[in-house]
Amino acid sequence: MRKIGLQEVENIALGASLLGAGGGGDPYYGKLMAIGAIKDCGPVTLVSPEEVPDDAIILPIAMMGAPTVLCEKGTAGQEYKVIYDMVSQYLGKSVYAVMPMEAGGVNSMLPIAAAARLGLPMVDCDGMGRAFPELQMVTFTIGGVKATPMALTDEKGNSVIFNTITNKWTEELARAVTMSCGGSVTVGLYIMDGATMKKYGVKDIVTRSEMLGKAIRDVKMQSDITITPEDAFLAASEGYRLFKGKISDVLRETNGAFNLGHIMLDGIGDYRGQKAEVTFQNENIAATVNGEIKATAPDLICVVDAETFVPVTTEALKYGKRVMVVGLKCYEMWRTKEGLALVGPRYFGVDTDYIPLEERVKGGNCSV
Amino acid sequence: MRKIGLQEVENIALGASLLGAGGGGDPYYGKLMAIGAIKDCGPVTLVSPEEVPDDAIILPIAMMGAPTVLCEKGTAGQEYKVIYDMVSQYLGKSVYAVMPMEAGGVNSMLPIAAAARLGLPMVDCDGMGRAFPELQMVTFTIGGVKATPMALTDEKGNSVIFNTITNKWTEELARAVTMSCGGSVTVGLYIMDGATMKKYGVKDIVTRSEMLGKAIRDVKMQSDITITPEDAFLAASEGYRLFKGKISDVLRETNGAFNLGHIMLDGIGDYRGQKAEVTFQNENIAATVNGEIKATAPDLICVVDAETFVPVTTEALKYGKRVMVVGLKCYEMWRTKEGLALVGPRYFGVDTDYIPLEERVKGGNCSV
Repeated sequence: MRKIGLQEVENIALGASLLGAGGGGDPYYGKLMAIGAIKDCGPVTLVSPEEVPDDAIILPIAMMGAPTVLCEKGTAGQEYKVIYDMVSQYLGKSVYAVMPMEAGGVNSMLPIAAAARLGLPMVDCDGMGRAFPELQMVTFTIGGVKATPMALTDEKGNSVIFNTITNKWTEELARAVTMSCGGSVTVGLYIMDGATMKKYGVKDIVTRSEMLGKAIRDVKMQSDITITPEDAFLAASEGYRLFKGKISDVLRETNGAFNLGHIMLDGIGDYRGQKAEVTFQNENIAATVNGEIKATAPDLICVVDAETFVPVTTEALKYGKRVMVVGLKCYEMWRTKEGLALVGPRYFGVDTDYIPLEERVKGGNCSV
Repeated sequence: MRKIGLQEVENIALGASLLGAGGGGDPYYGKLMAIGAIKDCGPVTLVSPEEVPDDAIILPIAMMGAPTVLCEKGTAGQEYKVIYDMVSQYLGKSVYAVMPMEAGGVNSMLPIAAAARLGLPMVDCDGMGRAFPELQMVTFTIGGVKATPMALTDEKGNSVIFNTITNKWTEELARAVTMSCGGSVTVGLYIMDGATMKKYGVKDIVTRSEMLGKAIRDVKMQSDITITPEDAFLAASEGYRLFKGKISDVLRETNGAFNLGHIMLDGIGDYRGQKAEVTFQNENIAATVNGEIKATAPDLICVVDAETFVPVTTEALKYGKRVMVVGLKCYEMWRTKEGLALVGPRYFGVDTDYIPLEERVKGGNCSV
C-alpha cells in the first residue's frame, strides 16, 4: 500500500503511453483529470493485489470509445459517482476498490481520478498489461469471468446496465450504445472479487508503468557514458528495436468507433534505404520491415520519438516525424491458445500465425 | 373486469391490424403467441383502467424492432419472465398488471401472451390508440412520463436496463441495441402507477380494437340490404374513404430497423382514371390523391382489401392488389401542439402542416 500523488501520476501517464502501443488514447487528457481529482481530494491509495481480501468487490473503471472522440467530447465529472451508485444498487454490496482494466493509454488515468473522487483505493493490477481495442480482450475473459453486469454512463446523464451471454456480446451491445452516445462513454465492468482478480489479473502493472515512465524521463540524464540514451531506453523497457525511420505516409480513418490506419516509414541511420509499415486498429497491431513481419499483436508495438523516446500515439502520427519502432513482449497469458483466440494477429485481420516477438527478430537487424 | 379467451383474441388481432395503420407488424405472429399462452395458462383477465388502484405498478410490454424481422426471428419464450424479473428486482416492488403500449399491430398481442404466462391481469389501455414507429411516440411522453427505467431482452438471453434523460434518448439507445441484437427484441417500458395510466392513457382501446375486429368479420353477414358492405364497414369503423385502387407499384426498404417505402395506386370504380400514393415508415404516414394530400399522421391511414375489408399491413402490399384507403381520426391528444411535435407530418418528413382528416376530405370525393 502506497500513495499515488502528482509526481507518480506524471510517470504512470508516460509509462502508460508506452504500454498503450500507440492506442488507448493519449493519456494526457486523462492525466489532467487524475491531477484535478488528486488536487481536489488528495492522493490515491494504491494497494497491491495481495493486500485485497478474497471476497472484496473490485470495480474496474474505464472509458469506452474512440480515443480521438474522447479527447474532444470530454466528460461531465459526475460519471464515476453514477457508475458507483449503479453498481452498488444493482449488486446490493459495497465496492472495496477501483481498478484499471487497461494499463495502456488514457484508461490508466481514469481509475486514478475515480479512486480520488470516490475516496476508494485503487488496485495495482489490470486485465491487459497494455491496451486493446475491444472490451472482451482481457485476461479475465480467458479465466471465464463475465464482463457483466456492466454499467455505462455518458456525460449527458444517460445510463445503461448490461447483462449478456458472452463478453463478445457485451462488446457488441455496449459499442452500439457508445456510438449512439456520441462515441465515448464511461463504464464499470468485469466487477469481480479479490480472489478472481489475483488469479487472472496482470499484477503490479501500475508500478511497472510508473517505472517505465520514470525510465523514459531519466534516460537522457543517465551518467553512464558507455551506453547511448537509445540503448539505455531499450534496456530499461526490455524493448526490441524493430526500425528507425521518417514517417512518409499516414492513413487514418474513424470507423465504427475505432481508429484504423497505417503509417509508412523510410529508414534513417542504420535503416537507410529500408522501408517499414505499422498498421493499427486503435493500437498498433503489426510491424513489417522490408515486407517481412517483425511483430504482431498481442506483443506491444510502440512508436517512440527517435530522440526523446517519448511514445507517439496513433492520433499524433504525422508526416515527417522521425521515430523508432520498438517491440515489447506481451503478458504471458496472451501467448496461450485461449489468449491468441482473443487477440492474436488473425483477429485483427493480419493473416499470419502468432510468432513471439523475440523469435521474429532473431537473425534480423533488430536489436534488443 | 372480464376474460379474454381465444375468440376475443381473434377479434382483437383483426381490429389491431386496422389500428396498426399498415404498421406495427402483422398481428398474426403475435396472435399465435397469445393463443399458445392462453391454451397453456388459461384466459387473461382484462381490467378497466378505473379498476386499477392509483398506486399499482403497471408494466407495459412490447416488441421493439422491424416487424419484417420479427416475423422471421421470433422469440424464445422466456422473455416475459426475464423482463418481469428485471423490473421487479430493479424497482424492488411487485408488478400489478401488464398493459399494451401500442394497440395497433403485433404489440396488441404480446401483452396478452405476457399476461397469460405471468398470471397477471392486462389493463384495457395503451399509449397510442394505434401504432407508431418510435418509442417516445406515446401519450405518456406528452404527460411527461419517462420511458425509463426500461428493460430489454433478446431471444438469446442478453438483457439491458436503460435510464435516460429523455424518451428520445431511450429511443436512440434502445434502437441501437435492438439492431445489434438482430433487429427485434422484447421490452418493458413506461413503467407507471395506476394514476398516471388513467391520466394520460388511451382508455378502453383493447375493447375498441375487439369491436373493430368483430365489425370487419360481421360486415358481410349483416342483414340490412339497404346498405352496402363497404358502407357498413365505414360506418362501424367511423372511417373516411380516401381512395379505391389497384396497387401499381410498391417500393420497400429496411433501413435502420424501420420499414420504409410507398405504394402507388391506379383508381378503380368511382376513382377510375385517378392516382394515389400512400407512404409509410413502418406505419402509413401520408395519403395523396391526384397530388393532393388527403390524410397524414397522426390520423390513421389504413389500406384494406377492397372486398373483404381485411387490413393489409405494409409487409403484405403487393402489385395488383385491389384495396381501399381509409382514414380514421386519431386520439384527440395527438392533435395538440405537444402531440403534433411528437408525431405530426413534419416529424416523418412530410412537408405540410397537420390538418385534421375530416377537414382535408371536405369537398373532395372522399366519403364517410
